[in-house]
Amino acid sequence: MAPPVEGGDAALLPEFPRGPLDAYRARASFSWKELALFTEGEDMLRFKKTIFSALENDPLFARSAGADLSLEKYRELNFLRCKRIFEYDFLSIEDMFKSPLKVPALIQCLGMYDSSLAVKYLLHSLVFGSAVYSSGSERHLTYIQKIFSMEIFGCFALTELSHGSNTKAIRTTAHYDPATKEFIIHSPDFEAAKFWVGNMGKTATHAVVFAKLHVPGDQCHGLHSFIVQIRDPKTLLPMPGVMVGDMGKKLGQNGLDNGFAMFHKVRVPRQSLLNRMGDVTPEGTYVSPFKDVRQRFGVSLGGLSSGRVSILSLAVVNLKLALAIALRFSATRRQFGPTEEEEIAVLEYPMQQCRLLPYLAAAYALDYFSKSLFLDLVEFQRGLASGDRSARQAELGREIHALASASKPLASWTAQQGIQECREACGGHGYLAMNRLGVLRDDNDPNCTYEGDNNVLLQQTSNYLLGLLAHRVQDGACFRSPLKSVDFLDAYPSILDQKFEVSSVADCLDSAVALAAYKWLVCYLLRETYQKLNQEKRSGSSDFEARNNCQVSHGRPLALAFLELTVVQRFHEHVHQPCVPPSLRAVLGRLSALYALWSLSRHAALLYRAERRRSCPGRRDRSS
Amino acid sequence: MAPPVEGGDAALLPEFPRGPLDAYRARASFSWKELALFTEGEDMLRFKKTIFSALENDPLFARSAGADLSLEKYRELNFLRCKRIFEYDFLSIEDMFKSPLKVPALIQCLGMYDSSLAVKYLLHSLVFGSAVYSSGSERHLTYIQKIFSMEIFGCFALTELSHGSNTKAIRTTAHYDPATKEFIIHSPDFEAAKFWVGNMGKTATHAVVFAKLHVPGDQCHGLHSFIVQIRDPKTLLPMPGVMVGDMGKKLGQNGLDNGFAMFHKVRVPRQSLLNRMGDVTPEGTYVSPFKDVRQRFGVSLGGLSSGRVSILSLAVVNLKLALAIALRFSATRRQFGPTEEEEIAVLEYPMQQCRLLPYLAAAYALDYFSKSLFLDLVEFQRGLASGDRSARQAELGREIHALASASKPLASWTAQQGIQECREACGGHGYLAMNRLGVLRDDNDPNCTYEGDNNVLLQQTSNYLLGLLAHRVQDGACFRSPLKSVDFLDAYPSILDQKFEVSSVADCLDSAVALAAYKWLVCYLLRETYQKLNQEKRSGSSDFEARNNCQVSHGRPLALAFLELTVVQRFHEHVHQPCVPPSLRAVLGRLSALYALWSLSRHAALLYRAERRRSCPGRRDRSS
Repeated sequence: MAPPVEGGDAALLPEFPRGPLDAYRARASFSWKELALFTEGEDMLRFKKTIFSALENDPLFARSAGADLSLEKYRELNFLRCKRIFEYDFLSIEDMFKSPLKVPALIQCLGMYDSSLAVKYLLHSLVFGSAVYSSGSERHLTYIQKIFSMEIFGCFALTELSHGSNTKAIRTTAHYDPATKEFIIHSPDFEAAKFWVGNMGKTATHAVVFAKLHVPGDQCHGLHSFIVQIRDPKTLLPMPGVMVGDMGKKLGQNGLDNGFAMFHKVRVPRQSLLNRMGDVTPEGTYVSPFKDVRQRFGVSLGGLSSGRVSILSLAVVNLKLALAIALRFSATRRQFGPTEEEEIAVLEYPMQQCRLLPYLAAAYALDYFSKSLFLDLVEFQRGLASGDRSARQAELGREIHALASASKPLASWTAQQGIQECREACGGHGYLAMNRLGVLRDDNDPNCTYEGDNNVLLQQTSNYLLGLLAHRVQDGACFRSPLKSVDFLDAYPSILDQKFEVSSVADCLDSAVALAAYKWLVCYLLRETYQKLNQEKRSGSSDFEARNNCQVSHGRPLALAFLELTVVQRFHEHVHQPCVPPSLRAVLGRLSALYALWSLSRHAALLYRAERRRSCPGRRDRSS
Repeated sequence: MAPPVEGGDAALLPEFPRGPLDAYRARASFSWKELALFTEGEDMLRFKKTIFSALENDPLFARSAGADLSLEKYRELNFLRCKRIFEYDFLSIEDMFKSPLKVPALIQCLGMYDSSLAVKYLLHSLVFGSAVYSSGSERHLTYIQKIFSMEIFGCFALTELSHGSNTKAIRTTAHYDPATKEFIIHSPDFEAAKFWVGNMGKTATHAVVFAKLHVPGDQCHGLHSFIVQIRDPKTLLPMPGVMVGDMGKKLGQNGLDNGFAMFHKVRVPRQSLLNRMGDVTPEGTYVSPFKDVRQRFGVSLGGLSSGRVSILSLAVVNLKLALAIALRFSATRRQFGPTEEEEIAVLEYPMQQCRLLPYLAAAYALDYFSKSLFLDLVEFQRGLASGDRSARQAELGREIHALASASKPLASWTAQQGIQECREACGGHGYLAMNRLGVLRDDNDPNCTYEGDNNVLLQQTSNYLLGLLAHRVQDGACFRSPLKSVDFLDAYPSILDQKFEVSSVADCLDSAVALAAYKWLVCYLLRETYQKLNQEKRSGSSDFEARNNCQVSHGRPLALAFLELTVVQRFHEHVHQPCVPPSLRAVLGRLSALYALWSLSRHAALLYRAERRRSCPGRRDRSS
């Protein structure tokens, strides 16, 4: 295990080396060390420092300047680095349980070094590991030890060539054979090949494979997951019946070996079924501990969220890295000025500030949100592990699913757009590969796609909100959720009667103002989407058509605005806690207001249109 | 010279191979061949086909599947391909004069093959070549022949390490020495090194170098350009006093060798000065044919436009390529559907249509605009070549400068965002390198930066419009420009009194409707920006501060809206000409309306706010 960093604040937060940034740093209205301590806490700073020090001092992590690694070499190196991370044992399983936030912190530190490494580590330990842990039972615990010692190396095989988003259409099958007490895993044709699976290309020995479970009598019980050995751990040669390979070069994350696999009647023991949601008896009878289908669905949805929450935190890392590069460049690059002799730093231009500073605020707000959502997920997973089958646990699963499904899009897009803005804000220098902005953009890009296409995922969130409103309208149910993210909606009729009565720009610099406007906006969008959906259905559209026709102009902005509100709400509360050091209150308050107002301003057309409709209720807007 | 393609329409526009796209193609409401003939014309189709056939049949242009070319190898190959393009002699100098549109057509064809090749060719033949041709005089014509035979290979060295956008701060010097009748080209320090110069890294033998011209008595006459030999054409070794090298890996366009150079008191003959704008007599006296500084400035601005207009057309190519990939994928990829059994093509989803089809319309509108602006530029350059020193010629230079300065940002951003949307719209498959969307994005990216950062350039356009309004307000001058792009502004008081009175969505499907709204919007933004600028100045801001404070929320949207209006106007007129085949009128009209409405909709918040201010004139919006 890597030795923890010793010493006081000076060792933990040493002064920056002197240089051209000194002038700006001297002008700060707050102490950056105090901000770092407040944002991270000393224990976490020490943990991150331990990781960074280990990587800095290990030649395996040295970057060879200017080297253009071949695909093969980069993938090999990334695997060796991943293995080394396990050897460092930065985080024991016990520590994970004690300080769960160290899990995303470790992933973020690896992501700061290289996305490919972070994702490789994440896929093995958290996605593969979590799937075994959360979907399996006692009999699968033996795998957990092997995962952490890297005796086996894992991947998560859900997506197929022809079906990614539509998991119900997954076509790999698992037929149970009572004679041998085995499942037969089979890919009916190449379109059903597992595809895009991270770690599968070169290095995985085991896969959690999703397949349709059939028991004798040809009854299908839907998608279940199985642990399948795909390679010999000693030779890395494919197991009999498994055709597995690498997908080749991607736009980014080329250290990660994405792969494909086809299974030709591969037999695995009955115990390979990850059986928390349902099991097959030795004789071939399907049994499930969940009586209520809705409950079972809620629990399984929560399980899908962990990947999305991890992506959220990886996107935040990419945004942070790009901003540090672009802001430092902008503070030192001088161009034009009030006179021909005197040039000013480009950061002094209102244009440059408007391009970059909102993303800085977004990085803070989303960073805090990613941690808070991770803790919510931990609560859910603890319930899952302890066998909690309460209605609250299922509701929590649904709420986290709704939040995670919109937060991955919001964070990955914010990062993607922010990195592009940083790239352009650095001019030509931003286009030089060594300045890393291209790698960050390319490595962040798949965050928009994997674990669910952003636009498809947003529909999950809008459907969640629409379902709650339908429940309220039809059954008089209250808006109530375990994390209280929807509770304010209960007052939607009175919120919609509120008016924006702030009289000066100065007053808007409290994020409470934007927050109130956001609540109004979400209530408005929810009601409009609900009405539009019902109108579509009344005019003869099927449910499928009605939802598709509502999504672009209603469901999508609803889901995004709801999630932005949640992010703003949590960050607002965080920076207004009594424990915030007095010297940080002003700057944190400004960050919170900037993020809130900037996000809200992107809905300005909607707000104006809504106001217009209210002031002229008889005159519907023509665009409706 | 490559043999032209013979034969009739069938050879020119052969049927597509049969495949999964047939069903959609069969549903088209128009003949794609007719559309191709209308858009390009038979002569141009034949010209493009000649180029594509030559490249297809030449092994030098074969792509080795899956090969990861090293930087060195790729740059070498790109140079050989560039040389081969000259050998094919697709376009003689005479042809260029006869059919000027073949120039951008050739660049576009090369861009379809590889941006690095198009830019390398463009930089040598058009940027370097044009600079010599337009800024030089009789005595420089000898270079032109050598450029086309590739006896010399050129680059355009304006940008320095510390100064790109701010050309006035360029610090390379050229001191005239009457004793030897030479200029001494010198880089005072490394911050004044020429930087980012395309072709300079490995291959250029000559550079057009911008330097501050000094004559004896230490009088500085500002920036002038010189032809300087930087390498021996036989050995490619640097000339004495020249330190030149390659800048290394970039985010994209890695076939292009961008370089740097420092000059240590390099002596070049007096005749190296490109002397159209000003010359130095053998004795060392500075002379200029232009009496009026404003006129001289107008002429030199027009010269800057050719690079921007070429970038506009390269951006359009990138957008076209990405759209073809994404739309074809969307038409064949099936995911989800009205029932679990029946999946539909993702192109059927309103979401996918809203993501992709506006960019398709943008590609058509911008493609047409790029050709029309190129022809305007040709008119300007002919004036330049014939020594036209009329006020009209100078006005034309200014107008083209204003249009080109905003069209490069609009096209490069539209392409960048469109390619990203295409990438995401193809899901995971869009992230596979072989599907090319990454290369297109990376190769398009520098279009946002080179020849002027997009945001900086937009200020040129808003300044142009503000200058015209000031002229009108202060001197009663009319809004009149040679290309008539600003003439409508003359009626701005009455345009601002107009109201949007269209009563149905169907009526909006004529781009004339969006066009009228755009005119109103540009008048509104121009007046608001002018007022804001004067208000800033009255409250004590310097001109520099006032412009910076106005740019984000006023000048920038003004410049973009003005250019969008110009694009919409030209495309609207183009598709409503009497010569449009009747069978194409509907589809072209829809494309025109879609582009216009989509672009306009991005200003929706502004339109609502403006309406609100008009209906409540006493109650100013709080955000102002």
